[in-house]
Amino acid sequence: MVSPLILVLNPSSSVPMTAAIDRGLDRLRIPGGPEIECFSIADGPEFIMTEEDILRCGLQIGEAVKNRPEAAAVVIACYAQPGLQHARTLTKAPVIGIQDAAVLLAIGMADRFGVIALSEASIARHMRNLRWLGVEHRRAGETVLKREGEGDDALFTGLVEAGRTLQAKGADVVIFGCSGFPAHRARLEEALGIPVIDPTQAAVGAALEQVLR
Amino acid sequence: MVSPLILVLNPSSSVPMTAAIDRGLDRLRIPGGPEIECFSIADGPEFIMTEEDILRCGLQIGEAVKNRPEAAAVVIACYAQPGLQHARTLTKAPVIGIQDAAVLLAIGMADRFGVIALSEASIARHMRNLRWLGVEHRRAGETVLKREGEGDDALFTGLVEAGRTLQAKGADVVIFGCSGFPAHRARLEEALGIPVIDPTQAAVGAALEQVLR
Amino acid sequence: MVSPLILVLNPSSSVPMTAAIDRGLDRLRIPGGPEIECFSIADGPEFIMTEEDILRCGLQIGEAVKNRPEAAAVVIACYAQPGLQHARTLTKAPVIGIQDAAVLLAIGMADRFGVIALSEASIARHMRNLRWLGVEHRRAGETVLKREGEGDDALFTGLVEAGRTLQAKGADVVIFGCSGFPAHRARLEEALGIPVIDPTQAAVGAALEQVLR
Amino acid sequence: MVSPLILVLNPSSSVPMTAAIDRGLDRLRIPGGPEIECFSIADGPEFIMTEEDILRCGLQIGEAVKNRPEAAAVVIACYAQPGLQHARTLTKAPVIGIQDAAVLLAIGMADRFGVIALSEASIARHMRNLRWLGVEHRRAGETVLKREGEGDDALFTGLVEAGRTLQAKGADVVIFGCSGFPAHRARLEEALGIPVIDPTQAAVGAALEQVLR
Amino acid sequence: MVSPLILVLNPSSSVPMTAAIDRGLDRLRIPGGPEIECFSIADGPEFIMTEEDILRCGLQIGEAVKNRPEAAAVVIACYAQPGLQHARTLTKAPVIGIQDAAVLLAIGMADRFGVIALSEASIARHMRNLRWLGVEHRRAGETVLKREGEGDDALFTGLVEAGRTLQAKGADVVIFGCSGFPAHRARLEEALGIPVIDPTQAAVGAALEQVLR
Amino acid sequence: MVSPLILVLNPSSSVPMTAAIDRGLDRLRIPGGPEIECFSIADGPEFIMTEEDILRCGLQIGEAVKNRPEAAAVVIACYAQPGLQHARTLTKAPVIGIQDAAVLLAIGMADRFGVIALSEASIARHMRNLRWLGVEHRRAGETVLKREGEGDDALFTGLVEAGRTLQAKGADVVIFGCSGFPAHRARLEEALGIPVIDPTQAAVGAALEQVLR
Repeated sequence: MVSPLILVLNPSSSVPMTAAIDRGLDRLRIPGGPEIECFSIADGPEFIMTEEDILRCGLQIGEAVKNRPEAAAVVIACYAQPGLQHARTLTKAPVIGIQDAAVLLAIGMADRFGVIALSEASIARHMRNLRWLGVEHRRAGETVLKREGEGDDALFTGLVEAGRTLQAKGADVVIFGCSGFPAHRARLEEALGIPVIDPTQAAVGAALEQVLR
Repeated sequence: MVSPLILVLNPSSSVPMTAAIDRGLDRLRIPGGPEIECFSIADGPEFIMTEEDILRCGLQIGEAVKNRPEAAAVVIACYAQPGLQHARTLTKAPVIGIQDAAVLLAIGMADRFGVIALSEASIARHMRNLRWLGVEHRRAGETVLKREGEGDDALFTGLVEAGRTLQAKGADVVIFGCSGFPAHRARLEEALGIPVIDPTQAAVGAALEQVLR
Repeated sequence: MVSPLILVLNPSSSVPMTAAIDRGLDRLRIPGGPEIECFSIADGPEFIMTEEDILRCGLQIGEAVKNRPEAAAVVIACYAQPGLQHARTLTKAPVIGIQDAAVLLAIGMADRFGVIALSEASIARHMRNLRWLGVEHRRAGETVLKREGEGDDALFTGLVEAGRTLQAKGADVVIFGCSGFPAHRARLEEALGIPVIDPTQAAVGAALEQVLR
Repeated sequence: MVSPLILVLNPSSSVPMTAAIDRGLDRLRIPGGPEIECFSIADGPEFIMTEEDILRCGLQIGEAVKNRPEAAAVVIACYAQPGLQHARTLTKAPVIGIQDAAVLLAIGMADRFGVIALSEASIARHMRNLRWLGVEHRRAGETVLKREGEGDDALFTGLVEAGRTLQAKGADVVIFGCSGFPAHRARLEEALGIPVIDPTQAAVGAALEQVLR
Repeated sequence: MVSPLILVLNPSSSVPMTAAIDRGLDRLRIPGGPEIECFSIADGPEFIMTEEDILRCGLQIGEAVKNRPEAAAVVIACYAQPGLQHARTLTKAPVIGIQDAAVLLAIGMADRFGVIALSEASIARHMRNLRWLGVEHRRAGETVLKREGEGDDALFTGLVEAGRTLQAKGADVVIFGCSGFPAHRARLEEALGIPVIDPTQAAVGAALEQVLR
Repeated sequence: MVSPLILVLNPSSSVPMTAAIDRGLDRLRIPGGPEIECFSIADGPEFIMTEEDILRCGLQIGEAVKNRPEAAAVVIACYAQPGLQHARTLTKAPVIGIQDAAVLLAIGMADRFGVIALSEASIARHMRNLRWLGVEHRRAGETVLKREGEGDDALFTGLVEAGRTLQAKGADVVIFGCSGFPAHRARLEEALGIPVIDPTQAAVGAALEQVLR
């Protein structure tokens, strides 16, 4: 029997970012278990920033889903979840958005969550989605990541600061509002002393649950 | 002084439907007042049905908005509101979705509203939008229009039946969940004895309010 | 044909305040369009402050509505909306409260709104009304206007300070919680960089939408 | 020491109705405990039906509260709660509306309550008040009392039928949406097998709690 | 006739704490009125701190209720309300939790309440209960009592500080999140200038209302 | 390396029921993946019916958790989730209740869910938990399973009927409100044409996600 395939679609064309997401999923790869394949949309934008990006990526995600009918589950590895509703109409397989998965996991674990966002503009987008899920009032707050300088250390310092701001607002668990940070999850959990959720890991975990059952 | 322009964009390419919408706006055309121009997106689908249609129309609406920077207000004349968030990032002019306008008008007039929808699939879409607005609990219900046979009389009979179903669920006001029915508004109001809202009229009314101020 | 009449009732007897409201409506007066008539209730209080004022004004508003059956729409130009429910039982014409109109306009434009209130006591009143509309959770906050000294400059300084306080609480749009400030709207919008809503303008705009249709 | 006085104000001028309310309070009269005085507003309407009645009664309730500063607590014995906010500004004594008291008592006892209303028009009023309390979603439903014929038996038959309708909608407790039915409470509880709340008894009970403490 | 008995069960075995609760109920003892008996669960913990305490006390409360079938009402005098649902299945008499009673009383009196909690851990518990009641959004905030030193004065200083923190968050009324402080209620009300609710007094007041009717 | 252990605790002492749950988990057992051990609490009740059962089972679950510190995750395999809060204070491992897991999975998949409950009494319990999660309004309805006769066929007929009742109420997904039915999941999905969630499978899936990460 062939292992079921979990297809992780990064709407960004950034190869290094896809590689980072891919490495973050190694812990979820079980020998003999479902296959987890992670790839970039080749003609996607490097970063998904604008509403136009989201519409355009939505259509590209749809094409990718049509091209891979063998997938037993699909994960859309962008916190803006481009094409989620569209993809759901194209396959009988479950299609999981990483924001949904992260938030629902957080709610099953703790009272209130905080989100580290990449921009002010994305926060209003996230709130629209929280209202759709029906759990806006479980959000302790959302804060924009600030980086001073380049490199992983500057990034980690910014993540710690953002996490502490969210804890001060009452967050019991912190969610990365971006798919690019799995390498920092464990270290940030230790620094903050509360759970940190990487959204792509959460979504692939939920996909595992679906394809195994 | 040139009159300010209210641009009403029908994402559908259907010329008869655009003409019907256009006629429905005549009552809002004031001599010397804002100009109201209504047109079809030439390469849009005839009917907006699928999630793919909505993404694709969203990008086309964006192009139309970029091409007409002189518009003082933009109305997206489709109840699914394709490209609403996108268009708002492309102009400083107010961009108004007809669903939002109809629902907010209803809430200022009455306790609970009902919606006549075109398909079951659209109802879940509407509910996502109501949750974003924050007013889901003001919805008495939503019902799918059923037509037996062709023509305006069969359509009107279906609208009356749907309206009565919504009244029985507690609706104090009925909203057309489609831009194509303005010609039936007055007659349906009379048949039901409660207000009926045509969403494009509601949105152009709100646009008037914005461009006059 | 006679133009439809929009009757704007200021429950206060203050003639200068009514004149200020009236001037603020000039932009909504279209040649050949609906007539907008604005008048004071002669035996109303100068300021509507107490709950007793609100009850008493409610009855006076009712008398005014009974005396002017020719009105195609009625606007109650006081943020406390005295007599709104009562007036609605006295006429088939739409009766619009300026608080409702301002808040529903804000929600169609932005995620969260803030209100500049005149007193702490009025804030609890506003919250009761927001709960009725069903949109309390869309309020970023409400702050009481502080004026140091007399005159328009002191007033404007207070409005800017209040607006900034509301922006810091997350407001994307600011509402005047009083009908007396239309002259400051444009200037405050410029100072804050976000939209400012004058509630009487919002309500007359909504009335226009109703009487034109 | 003089016993503290609980003043029960019936905004209606109906003497038989006030007598019925008064008899219903006998069980709450404790020898040596607070005095419970129940009276009609002499120039009130016989029945409080319209929004105008509610405004007018609100002012009359205010006068009654001003005239009796010795009251340790005030109960407004009409389910529409005329003058509640006004009366609260006129005395330091607690002012209790019978609708509020009934609903809060119900919520502490059971999951969902139903209300027997006197007219369709009153239901929208009740819902506005439930939203202010914040407990609209605890309402299983509301139904209008129907009486066929005159007299207590016809009334009781109507109450039983209304109660059963509410039970079918999921109500665990039934509230009389009117102050005139205390004589039927015990018998209706037996017929339905679930608790029935008389709102004036609930409010005087809450007043007792306040004046004893 | 024998007076009805209100049984106040303190799940803690602490005799001094039960004595303090008991003294706080003297004002609710009416000559000839219901008897109010307050006692400790002999084998309960001194303080109810852990979730295990709450489960264990819940079973002990159940035993106490079974042993005293003559009680006309039962009050569970611990803010965590151990055994509330269990006790309700064991008797036809009303069983009242002091948290529920305090919060529902607060909501009938004011817009937003604050709670003085004994520990961070208890706050999440309280929020779960508020969500069940359906009134979480009426909570202005909750703050943990801090005591510097021993004795009543240090305690009172901590209560005042906590109360002021809650007022700054918008609380119009303060609730003691613990049954042990009735002796400080009147003095704290004076210091803060707003009502303070002792939860056991609130619950016995509500029980009075039930057993008298 | 030893495989992480997921401990599935059935608070019931029923060996056949535990065997049924255990068989239902086979699909989640991956060679080389986490170990899934399922056992009965030996001195638990056969069926968890009363609130007393829930308290008592809560303490027994606590003992079981203390005795098995090697567990990497704990699942409480009873829809009433006895001891959930308690167990969370006893281990750093995630403790997952099957009701929470089923509901959160449902919300990520569909708009509204329905629950097949075993008794009317349990429905109020479920609603309290939904309010804690914050997602009560996503519940289309809940219905009590009716069985006519013994055996699997009678059970399945009852499940189909209950599922159809829930679909008629708007449910897009059905949840078993009991841990005993995994053998019927696939067949019921086929009969209804919509997803059916077995809560223990959902919880073990969520545990997998946690222990793999």
